[in-house]
Amino acid sequence: MSTVLNKLGALEAARLLNRRELTAEQLVRACLARIEQREPQIHAWAELDPDHALAQARALDKGPVRGVLHGLPLAVKDIFDTHDLPTRYGSSIYARHHPDADAACVALCREAGALVLGKSVTTEFATYHPGPTRNPRNPAYTPGGSSSGSAAAVADDMAPLALGTQTAGSIIRPAAYCGIIGFKPSFGRVPRAGTKALADSLDTIGGFARSVEDVGLLASVLMRDERLRNLAYSGKPRIGMFRTQQWRHSLPETRAAYEHAARVLSAAGARVEEMPLPAEDCAVAQLHADVMAYESAQSLAYERQAHAGQLSTKLQTMLQAAAGIATQDYLDLRARAAKLAARVDSWFDQYDIVLTPSASGEPPFFEQGTGDPQFCRGWTMCGVPAVHLPFAQGPQGLPVGLQAIGRVNTDHALLAMAAWVHQELASQPLVM
Amino acid sequence: MSTVLNKLGALEAARLLNRRELTAEQLVRACLARIEQREPQIHAWAELDPDHALAQARALDKGPVRGVLHGLPLAVKDIFDTHDLPTRYGSSIYARHHPDADAACVALCREAGALVLGKSVTTEFATYHPGPTRNPRNPAYTPGGSSSGSAAAVADDMAPLALGTQTAGSIIRPAAYCGIIGFKPSFGRVPRAGTKALADSLDTIGGFARSVEDVGLLASVLMRDERLRNLAYSGKPRIGMFRTQQWRHSLPETRAAYEHAARVLSAAGARVEEMPLPAEDCAVAQLHADVMAYESAQSLAYERQAHAGQLSTKLQTMLQAAAGIATQDYLDLRARAAKLAARVDSWFDQYDIVLTPSASGEPPFFEQGTGDPQFCRGWTMCGVPAVHLPFAQGPQGLPVGLQAIGRVNTDHALLAMAAWVHQELASQPLVM
Repeated sequence: MSTVLNKLGALEAARLLNRRELTAEQLVRACLARIEQREPQIHAWAELDPDHALAQARALDKGPVRGVLHGLPLAVKDIFDTHDLPTRYGSSIYARHHPDADAACVALCREAGALVLGKSVTTEFATYHPGPTRNPRNPAYTPGGSSSGSAAAVADDMAPLALGTQTAGSIIRPAAYCGIIGFKPSFGRVPRAGTKALADSLDTIGGFARSVEDVGLLASVLMRDERLRNLAYSGKPRIGMFRTQQWRHSLPETRAAYEHAARVLSAAGARVEEMPLPAEDCAVAQLHADVMAYESAQSLAYERQAHAGQLSTKLQTMLQAAAGIATQDYLDLRARAAKLAARVDSWFDQYDIVLTPSASGEPPFFEQGTGDPQFCRGWTMCGVPAVHLPFAQGPQGLPVGLQAIGRVNTDHALLAMAAWVHQELASQPLVM
Repeated sequence: MSTVLNKLGALEAARLLNRRELTAEQLVRACLARIEQREPQIHAWAELDPDHALAQARALDKGPVRGVLHGLPLAVKDIFDTHDLPTRYGSSIYARHHPDADAACVALCREAGALVLGKSVTTEFATYHPGPTRNPRNPAYTPGGSSSGSAAAVADDMAPLALGTQTAGSIIRPAAYCGIIGFKPSFGRVPRAGTKALADSLDTIGGFARSVEDVGLLASVLMRDERLRNLAYSGKPRIGMFRTQQWRHSLPETRAAYEHAARVLSAAGARVEEMPLPAEDCAVAQLHADVMAYESAQSLAYERQAHAGQLSTKLQTMLQAAAGIATQDYLDLRARAAKLAARVDSWFDQYDIVLTPSASGEPPFFEQGTGDPQFCRGWTMCGVPAVHLPFAQGPQGLPVGLQAIGRVNTDHALLAMAAWVHQELASQPLVM
């Protein structure tokens, strides 16, 4: 039994756990067995303490059902503080860092009964310098970043749920590269206490799962919103298809997936429209990159100053670039970002949901880094909720999909429609 | 000499330090002497290590001038992490907490040459449960909260500069009660990494000094904006006088200070206008209190869950109230707050600066708590910059003043005009 338990989705496992037809210990043992088998190739974990995971499971099995995540093993990106496991933020500066408290989002999950299976690999401070994690679909490729270990662990059936953060494209991109669901909620909806800060106006906490419904379960806890546990949707959404200004960087597999989705969803009864691109080149990706660099250099003031020698060259380059951004220019960029967000908001008078690329295409090779977040930067900057939906296989046999975008603070509506969209697309997967 | 050095303002001390006419060690010794004399009555400090402060000073004296805060002693509210001093957040839960890093704002100050004199008392997690700090103008009274120790230390000439945070009224109110300058910048302008989070959409970092120019010096480092070091202003501002919906709670001394300011500034050539109050009762203070309670309960999820017994009754009451706020209601409150912020923003088409009460009046007695932030809640929620200006003495001989409000992200213009306003008012102080 333990060889398949680790493949259970979060909702299904939760139902069995709730009925005491499955114990948390059984489920954790299955996950740990999978990890033991696969971790030497995948390197998803920054810290793993099997005995501690089992102790948490046994304690949960002995007590009452704590909440909707009771007994579910959770992979926690190593950017979130944990009181019982070291937290290194992907940097040697914090090699011996043992927080005194849990990040608020971790505490919310434990309060609902989840157990922390381990800390999953993050890139350096959730920026660009990669960790050791490999793509579980094919270890020659990157799993994406910065939530590399979280996405890989869920994709490889090591854990049913994982926590991540997105400042540029760090949830949506690894979800795309690993072929799972990744959900970035509306900005400001999940408390960031105890999460290593990178860019104050951008950092967003979210999660990974293997179905939209499962990620809704996790989000219902993080966002304190039980509506996210019922994603029933009976309408036919008005879908806007948006290529973005980065379209020229999209690879054939993304273009094919985009066309395929439009066809399938139209045939399923949705009103599907290609959206016009903004006339002017508003250079959204660069706008976001500048805001992120400026804020990161401020947030990492201590590390810059006291431990510069332990920062990667990539990060040092970003922080040096930030020094060239004048503060008034930064404020002007923020004002432009606010105008763009208002424009995006107005789209949703016409469309219920917008589908757009998550990444240029299949993941790059591991040696080439964690990929480019250019297809995500604008959405993070606008604070809109986004969920990656996998439904295609590219020419290298690796996952491809699209992300669905909704109006700010209508996360439930987005996930409900995304579940419908994903069901339609997954029923007619595209293999290239 | 050392008996008066501690009274030097930050700019004047910085000038002497820069010319090497004063050493950091001399200045620190003067501050420590003052602390030794007064701390038994005032209790401004949560942690003080005189030897460590002197060691920092001697190291600065030996090296080159590091930046615009070179050699200036800084009181750091004990809500900010420091790598070299314990950080307790005003709670016994963190009695043995030794952070591995500095908060970003502390690191920015050190980078500019400041030295951390010690950790100043905060209320519990910067909420309502008071620390031991007394008002240095009269120890029978509260210094206000939550930045109690920072305001008291600067008011009592123990330090020329201090760091604080405001989520409701935690900078402006203690500045008012202690009779000094307190500056809350526009929301989002000072990085919050390493600062204990309370309410993500409200927490704002700022500072205290004994002149507007001195607080501008500190803010120029926190906000990476050298314009804040030149507050020259030659015009005559259009000043809006705003009583707020809380006016009925204002005490006679606040009303007298308000009328006095209007008269003096009008005579000085400003165009002073009484602003109309909103027709409907939009209950701004309650709106803010609900948003703050909701977000605090999310941010303090770990402490609520793992250490509930160590939370004060006041805090437990706030967190329990939060449990009754449905998430959709919270989102509706946030939407109302955004509309209010847009309305406030439009005021600044007509007015350059708005003057409004900082607190109901003179501080309450120590035993009555840290006072009510009702006159600050709305401004924090709207994210506007605010600076408290002291210029009156109430019937108990305690300080009274007003706060000046500016348009979001025009902090330099606000401080420049506030310096002019303060100069005019301080030249004709009101004694009741």
